[in-house]
Amino acid sequence: MPGWLSRPRDQHPTNDSLSHSTLKKRHIGNMLVVMKRQAPQPQVDAVIERIEQLGLKAHPMPGATRTAIGITGNTAAIDPSVLAGMPGVLELLRVTKPYKLASREMHIDDTVVRLPQSQFGPHTFTVIAGPCSVENESMMRQTAAFLRDLGVRLLRGGAFKPRTSPYSFQGHGEEGLRILKAVGREFGMGIVTEVMDASQVADVESAADMLQIGARNMQNFTLLKAVSQSSKPVLLKRGIAATLEEWLMAAEYLLAGGNDQVVLCERGVRTFADHSRNTLDLSIVPPVKQHSHLPVIVDPSHGTGNRAFVPAMSLAALAAGADGIMVEVHPEPDRALSDGAQSLTFSQFEQLLESLRKLAAVMDRQLV
Amino acid sequence: MPGWLSRPRDQHPTNDSLSHSTLKKRHIGNMLVVMKRQAPQPQVDAVIERIEQLGLKAHPMPGATRTAIGITGNTAAIDPSVLAGMPGVLELLRVTKPYKLASREMHIDDTVVRLPQSQFGPHTFTVIAGPCSVENESMMRQTAAFLRDLGVRLLRGGAFKPRTSPYSFQGHGEEGLRILKAVGREFGMGIVTEVMDASQVADVESAADMLQIGARNMQNFTLLKAVSQSSKPVLLKRGIAATLEEWLMAAEYLLAGGNDQVVLCERGVRTFADHSRNTLDLSIVPPVKQHSHLPVIVDPSHGTGNRAFVPAMSLAALAAGADGIMVEVHPEPDRALSDGAQSLTFSQFEQLLESLRKLAAVMDRQLV
Amino acid sequence: MPGWLSRPRDQHPTNDSLSHSTLKKRHIGNMLVVMKRQAPQPQVDAVIERIEQLGLKAHPMPGATRTAIGITGNTAAIDPSVLAGMPGVLELLRVTKPYKLASREMHIDDTVVRLPQSQFGPHTFTVIAGPCSVENESMMRQTAAFLRDLGVRLLRGGAFKPRTSPYSFQGHGEEGLRILKAVGREFGMGIVTEVMDASQVADVESAADMLQIGARNMQNFTLLKAVSQSSKPVLLKRGIAATLEEWLMAAEYLLAGGNDQVVLCERGVRTFADHSRNTLDLSIVPPVKQHSHLPVIVDPSHGTGNRAFVPAMSLAALAAGADGIMVEVHPEPDRALSDGAQSLTFSQFEQLLESLRKLAAVMDRQLV
Amino acid sequence: MPGWLSRPRDQHPTNDSLSHSTLKKRHIGNMLVVMKRQAPQPQVDAVIERIEQLGLKAHPMPGATRTAIGITGNTAAIDPSVLAGMPGVLELLRVTKPYKLASREMHIDDTVVRLPQSQFGPHTFTVIAGPCSVENESMMRQTAAFLRDLGVRLLRGGAFKPRTSPYSFQGHGEEGLRILKAVGREFGMGIVTEVMDASQVADVESAADMLQIGARNMQNFTLLKAVSQSSKPVLLKRGIAATLEEWLMAAEYLLAGGNDQVVLCERGVRTFADHSRNTLDLSIVPPVKQHSHLPVIVDPSHGTGNRAFVPAMSLAALAAGADGIMVEVHPEPDRALSDGAQSLTFSQFEQLLESLRKLAAVMDRQLV
Repeated sequence: MPGWLSRPRDQHPTNDSLSHSTLKKRHIGNMLVVMKRQAPQPQVDAVIERIEQLGLKAHPMPGATRTAIGITGNTAAIDPSVLAGMPGVLELLRVTKPYKLASREMHIDDTVVRLPQSQFGPHTFTVIAGPCSVENESMMRQTAAFLRDLGVRLLRGGAFKPRTSPYSFQGHGEEGLRILKAVGREFGMGIVTEVMDASQVADVESAADMLQIGARNMQNFTLLKAVSQSSKPVLLKRGIAATLEEWLMAAEYLLAGGNDQVVLCERGVRTFADHSRNTLDLSIVPPVKQHSHLPVIVDPSHGTGNRAFVPAMSLAALAAGADGIMVEVHPEPDRALSDGAQSLTFSQFEQLLESLRKLAAVMDRQLV
Repeated sequence: MPGWLSRPRDQHPTNDSLSHSTLKKRHIGNMLVVMKRQAPQPQVDAVIERIEQLGLKAHPMPGATRTAIGITGNTAAIDPSVLAGMPGVLELLRVTKPYKLASREMHIDDTVVRLPQSQFGPHTFTVIAGPCSVENESMMRQTAAFLRDLGVRLLRGGAFKPRTSPYSFQGHGEEGLRILKAVGREFGMGIVTEVMDASQVADVESAADMLQIGARNMQNFTLLKAVSQSSKPVLLKRGIAATLEEWLMAAEYLLAGGNDQVVLCERGVRTFADHSRNTLDLSIVPPVKQHSHLPVIVDPSHGTGNRAFVPAMSLAALAAGADGIMVEVHPEPDRALSDGAQSLTFSQFEQLLESLRKLAAVMDRQLV
Repeated sequence: MPGWLSRPRDQHPTNDSLSHSTLKKRHIGNMLVVMKRQAPQPQVDAVIERIEQLGLKAHPMPGATRTAIGITGNTAAIDPSVLAGMPGVLELLRVTKPYKLASREMHIDDTVVRLPQSQFGPHTFTVIAGPCSVENESMMRQTAAFLRDLGVRLLRGGAFKPRTSPYSFQGHGEEGLRILKAVGREFGMGIVTEVMDASQVADVESAADMLQIGARNMQNFTLLKAVSQSSKPVLLKRGIAATLEEWLMAAEYLLAGGNDQVVLCERGVRTFADHSRNTLDLSIVPPVKQHSHLPVIVDPSHGTGNRAFVPAMSLAALAAGADGIMVEVHPEPDRALSDGAQSLTFSQFEQLLESLRKLAAVMDRQLV
Repeated sequence: MPGWLSRPRDQHPTNDSLSHSTLKKRHIGNMLVVMKRQAPQPQVDAVIERIEQLGLKAHPMPGATRTAIGITGNTAAIDPSVLAGMPGVLELLRVTKPYKLASREMHIDDTVVRLPQSQFGPHTFTVIAGPCSVENESMMRQTAAFLRDLGVRLLRGGAFKPRTSPYSFQGHGEEGLRILKAVGREFGMGIVTEVMDASQVADVESAADMLQIGARNMQNFTLLKAVSQSSKPVLLKRGIAATLEEWLMAAEYLLAGGNDQVVLCERGVRTFADHSRNTLDLSIVPPVKQHSHLPVIVDPSHGTGNRAFVPAMSLAALAAGADGIMVEVHPEPDRALSDGAQSLTFSQFEQLLESLRKLAAVMDRQLV
């Protein structure tokens, strides 16, 4: 009877003849070949061929700027130098965690994700603000003008809205994208908006400065693969019941595909608790920092679902070590087409920004 | 301070000036116009125009055989007869639950979902069996031959596999579909296989008799809308942290889009418990039956992640009132490319079927 | 960076210099000395003294019929024969699981727990029935008469009621015990009732044939130790967020203290799901059977909180391999002082018993 | 059917003929009579008699300084003036929430809980520090000396330790209390220590300045009632799966019994997440403040189980609006008898205190 009690959630239970440590060993055996940026295709093909000659299986993951090749099979027997010396190979990695490119083991320093208008990293606290959904051009312009005057550089707003009910407002779609693009240009703000499906990536990319992947899509692997090919930075929300490992594995899909401009976003998880819409899990921020080099921000609006709790949770996010927040602001929250109860009014937001500024100074971060 | 403690999870918290009962009233106000099957487009357009004349918003949801039109806005003031009498209108519904077409309120009798080879409904207990993934043609033929001899009519097998890690085996894709189709034809079995993305629907449809939507995709609304246009029955798995209402709302996307051949599948949810991979939630079966007319089956393989627990949970599913099970069987589970630990061996499966047959007799169901 | 991802929930995270495997080794090192039944105190004292001479710490756990002595410290270095040969020592166990006496490793065969009126074990399916609380003598007599006529041998009813609110009905206390005792004698039924505090054990023991420990008290260690000294069998409910290991560890407190007549009772756990009051976790039944020799029953009344779901869950419990159920029955559920919504009426209960009888025949169990 | 709320989880599902709103109305009918401090017993008896004459049920709750009398039954028909005018009656309350004395409805201003050495309230941030368990006098003196020099006024340390395993170190009991009392006196620090059972209250009271009720005992109602009679302030930890309402109801037991010096303590809840030992739920702090006047502090040591995460979560607690923290500090954490992995070293604690001091200045709180 194997060590069932110590079985981690994300590992399949062993059958009787297969011990936990055996499984782990097999897992540790997996390797990753990272090709140099711009390595030509024939070099990639040669590595794949060599892997297969060794009796292993190659999993090429072409990205925008480089290709990685996963190896599965009994890699314990490989002499790494066989592959490491081949033309075009940058490095050969033994995977000790299931995620690799997202791991701090691989990348000691904090990653800074840069947009033309702003950035996410260890010395800043980045604020993304705006309404839940793009309702019309007038309210977007009004909101953008207000936010830009306060120094906010990134504007959020949903054109495509994932909704539990088929009968709920589903966003204005392409018209919403057009508005976002126009308003972003007019006010010089970066646009952060959600892409819900692989088929929308090209459209959303043309309007947005940062592509948001929503909680429900954190494991939409087709979408992750499509977005991994984009040259735009990605905001990857944590799934509503995702472990840290699953979240970093979703990021790994993006990184492995070639997009290394990934910002994580905690937005509340589902628990038995009913004091707020979701349970905002700030306690994941320090573990994210320990295990990954990627920036992580917090969405207190969806996380609590209640504007009364947003300011306290925003300050707490900063104190916990998060690299920013994404917060909903609406000119008239009570008339919002979606999520009005969790949107701050303009004056509430202004007051929050003031508090964040004071706290950021103590935390050695600059509010951007 | 409003009745925050009585707020259901799936409703947004109210702001201070908006009471729970107000919200509820607004919700109750929503309506659904169901058009007759084959109502011509001009009739649909006329209804939409009329709705907009009333100052409301129309949400047309065209389906394969009929169109439904959701109405949002202040519907409390509408006189229903205005719409009910229009040409092509089948009925006008006030939505008292957020899901409507999936609700037993709307459809007293149990729905029977029929495939050419089998069916799902109140008088049968339907067994879907097969390996987690289509590994190669030989093992699929071996498994199909074994299952068909035992009277199993529906064969499962994944061609596209959603995997947490980008470095894990992701299925054989189109080659897998080809094998499934060939084996299904050779043995006269119905094929149940997963479609992971809207872009795959046409391909999967051509090989499968029933389209499976996986737990991670339960709220992939683009996929739900695409599958709602299919003429093939759908197996809709419950999301890993989905409430009953969210699950039925996902089904509602399918029904509202015109596909009313939907079978629900409980496959385990995520909790604090660690005695099995997921927590198989048989306790949702009676509430599903109470609130919906759709058939519901259980997947004890993913639900427990451990073959040792599969037989007991299969019998319990039948006793709890489920309409079937989907269970993983593999000729050599220890050599499976995925999920081997939860697959039954041939002899274990044969023994389970024997036990199910005895129990089904007592439960007044026929094993199919 | 240690193996944080594989850390089981119930183990403290390691600090940086202490690896998971080290911790585990330390744990494996722990030992248990089981003294012979009736070993005289001087023999016990001699063993304790010897343990301390070895530089270890002794944890004597005197029970009704025998004493066990836990050993903590660096036991890796001990030569077991030093202790094994001492007078009065029955055996010396290395603890590979944190629970030992409750483990199937230690006790291959299923335990049968016997009461004068009934029993719990692998060949029976035992029904405990009765109202949530003892409301008055008349309704208890009416209920007992009805149940006894149907062949039910064990009567439940709460005299002391744990209630979330200090303003709720808290049970009739000693008067309730008096009624239970009188009714049990009159109808020849065994009484199962809850003991909420160590100070009540003597009183409850004098009226009850089986002491129930409620979910909220599963880790009330003072109570567990007190009940471990009782000669009456114990019904140990699973805590509302207890893992299998914690539950078996609570049982271990009882066994280690000398009371080996323990029946486990699953009664629903707390999850995000809202389709029933709690989430009845039938999926724990097979793991309990795999890891422990103790009988396990199910309480579908508290588990679902809704009488409409009780019959299906009772049948499912039987099919899942449980050894019995505890179910609430009330002459007039709508007038019950507590938990009326989850109590079956007499006619519903009679019908359920009939269904259970048919199912039990197929499952090779006798309904008692 | 008194006392339970209209909230889904805690609520027994209604049967079909009993609507939610009916239930709610019955609930609103419940009342509470609060007697004046020192009202003589005959006045209390007279009120009880009057209540019963009205055909209702009286629930007297005698406390150290005053008595409250709950009323259940159909109170809708009562004319409140009948009771309000009686001698000794302070006020007559209609209970709109299940907790009343703990509610901000009843007590607009924040409560300040005072100890001889320190206090908990809106203008301070109170630090309780010390080892998990009292291991010996020398380490307690060493720790106390260190903490007092840094300005810490409250010393924690467990004499009675609730342990999952009967074979784990269970604390030094009375010897531990003696050490705590001696060290507290020597260094002029307030002692905070856990009381595990009603039978220990007198002993613990004689050594401690504040009685801690642990998470596992949050619903040990016998213990709550016993502690409600104490004149010492209480630190009430949140249960591992307790909702906000259940937590405030546990506080209500204390308040209703006469002890209004209650400080709440969030210490992590149980969820699916595995990135830390428990999931520290800082998101409950703002709702506690909204719904109750009681101070609330945070235990980041048990909440995360990992010292690496304690500083960030301590700062976040302060930013979220908590009134203090309780944190584990140990001279040599790696040699601790319990919970070493989550204890800070002296130098880590000193550094944390420095960070807290800076942050407290910005948050307009004084570190005490």
